[in-house]
Amino acid sequence: MTQERIWTAALTIIGDEILSGRTQDKNVAQIAAWLNVQGIRLAEVRVVADRTEAIVEAVNTLRARNDYLFTTGGIGPTHDDITVDSIAEALGVAVEHHPRAMAVLEAYYATRGGLTEARARMARVPVGADLIDNKVSGAPGIRIGNIFIMAGVPHITAGMLDALTGTLEGGRPVVSKTIGCWVAESEVADLLRDAEKAHDGVAVGSYPFFRDGRTGANFVVRSADAALVDRCIADLVSALEATGRVVTPEGI
Amino acid sequence: MTQERIWTAALTIIGDEILSGRTQDKNVAQIAAWLNVQGIRLAEVRVVADRTEAIVEAVNTLRARNDYLFTTGGIGPTHDDITVDSIAEALGVAVEHHPRAMAVLEAYYATRGGLTEARARMARVPVGADLIDNKVSGAPGIRIGNIFIMAGVPHITAGMLDALTGTLEGGRPVVSKTIGCWVAESEVADLLRDAEKAHDGVAVGSYPFFRDGRTGANFVVRSADAALVDRCIADLVSALEATGRVVTPEGI
Repeated sequence: MTQERIWTAALTIIGDEILSGRTQDKNVAQIAAWLNVQGIRLAEVRVVADRTEAIVEAVNTLRARNDYLFTTGGIGPTHDDITVDSIAEALGVAVEHHPRAMAVLEAYYATRGGLTEARARMARVPVGADLIDNKVSGAPGIRIGNIFIMAGVPHITAGMLDALTGTLEGGRPVVSKTIGCWVAESEVADLLRDAEKAHDGVAVGSYPFFRDGRTGANFVVRSADAALVDRCIADLVSALEATGRVVTPEGI
Repeated sequence: MTQERIWTAALTIIGDEILSGRTQDKNVAQIAAWLNVQGIRLAEVRVVADRTEAIVEAVNTLRARNDYLFTTGGIGPTHDDITVDSIAEALGVAVEHHPRAMAVLEAYYATRGGLTEARARMARVPVGADLIDNKVSGAPGIRIGNIFIMAGVPHITAGMLDALTGTLEGGRPVVSKTIGCWVAESEVADLLRDAEKAHDGVAVGSYPFFRDGRTGANFVVRSADAALVDRCIADLVSALEATGRVVTPEGI
């Protein structure tokens, strides 16, 4: 059996507003789901403050050990937007105004008061970078090497992901199937462990909940091999039903 | 002027379910807000997979450079719950069943089918640990040194935070005030930068949005010095109003 290549990505979220609790992050879930479809696994996430050293450390660690690194946040026109300068510092390159980004911003702001110096900040990129299209608002995202520098506002991030769809090399997407059961996970812990052991290459996750006064759990089976996921799910359903429990397909 | 001691915490979220995009994290915002009230700043967050090496790396890095480290997730009774063993490995200590945790679980499960071996897993702690009360469900959280090991399910985490309220040494809470304005942040970037520079010790954040077809932004001023925040906000309001704009107190 040949070992299948697993493609991984990391995400660095740059934002005091997330660390202060002011803003609820939406980008982890959104980017994770998008990566799955590209056949890339989100391996790790860091949330760092708007501080150059923190950004440099995260970027240099994560880009070295993952196929791709995404960042969100800190690419606007104000003084607290330091992502581009920090990533340039991490890479040891200078910052320049990207000609196509300048043209994009000039067109975008032509009817919105003109391209001021502050707005032109959003055309600044590390030397050697390409742009990521932004059909939602003016300023583009930036790609340099295996780093993808994206907006922090989730619907703008979504538009940039859309522009990248199908352009990144990945492996087989991870297939995930869920079943649910009104059972305390502690009552079926052995059965779950056995199902994972019996099917080499699957991961079985157990996610308990308490709802309407009752205890239940969803069990999620993941693998890049869809047939293996199906076999593991079938065995899990049989094992749970053999204990007299009712299983809900697709989860509860 | 004496430099004020800033107390920091880090958070490690242990969970394949977050990295897969299946579950939307709620704990970053919840724990950040709670820490603010304790006078502790959330300095960094990592989301790591359910893998021992990933947990050990995050725990050892973050506990060394922060006053406190919180973890969420992976303390249930199933095979994918490896937080306690991983943290024990990070600390170089063994794992034992905590007597009081056993008593708590015995009482909790007395009317719920009894304390099975799987359930008793939730009484396992790194040697030398104390417990964190859990009034919501059975299994307690764990404190060892400056590490606080908490549940992943947000309302159980909330109960554990509640049990810790007022027990951790911190500094002055960060005071945060927000004003809003229907303006593109790029039009007032200089004014924001100047306000931050003029008030040493504040951080001014700019958070743009697009709503009802209009562009606006909220500006957030943060500092442990409430009077300084007020002065900076007053100056910002004056500067914005001097450009003919209407400012919304408390933000939009």
